[in-house]
Amino acid sequence: MEAIDLSDEKKNKITVEIYGQQYVIVGTESPNHIRAVAMAVDEKMREISNRNPLLDTSKVAVLTAVNAVNEYMKLKLEVEILREQLEQKD
Amino acid sequence: MEAIDLSDEKKNKITVEIYGQQYVIVGTESPNHIRAVAMAVDEKMREISNRNPLLDTSKVAVLTAVNAVNEYMKLKLEVEILREQLEQKD
Repeated sequence: MEAIDLSDEKKNKITVEIYGQQYVIVGTESPNHIRAVAMAVDEKMREISNRNPLLDTSKVAVLTAVNAVNEYMKLKLEVEILREQLEQKD
Repeated sequence: MEAIDLSDEKKNKITVEIYGQQYVIVGTESPNHIRAVAMAVDEKMREISNRNPLLDTSKVAVLTAVNAVNEYMKLKLEVEILREQLEQKD
């Protein structure tokens, strides 16, 4: 079991299972949020693995990370646009 | 080299290197966006690996995915709040 620390403030420590491995996730986020994140990663890994059955676990995980960062960056642009729209209305 | 398909529309096919491995990323996103995503994943993997030197590549990648999905979900909440604020101003 390995621990990852999601931030520096007051922390929750939650054990989750992702793709058959246990991880201790440490973060200020609520246990429910942490479990939802782990479940989303597990589901995405299984989806990518089903579509590419020859990939090893490490590559499945890297491509899951690529997918999540891609979605994050697109959402980040959306946040900037929404903030500009809000400012124009103030 | 493994390919991941980020969507179903008109596609770019870009070869990137992440954590010493080559990946072919296929997506509608611009080549620059895809390269930026790959670079962000590579950087995050190196950061997590430096903080936890005993982790194998697969676990480093899973924890990178956990981190990215966590940030994505928090940003998603922010988008919902911004949209509500915009609607109230209409």
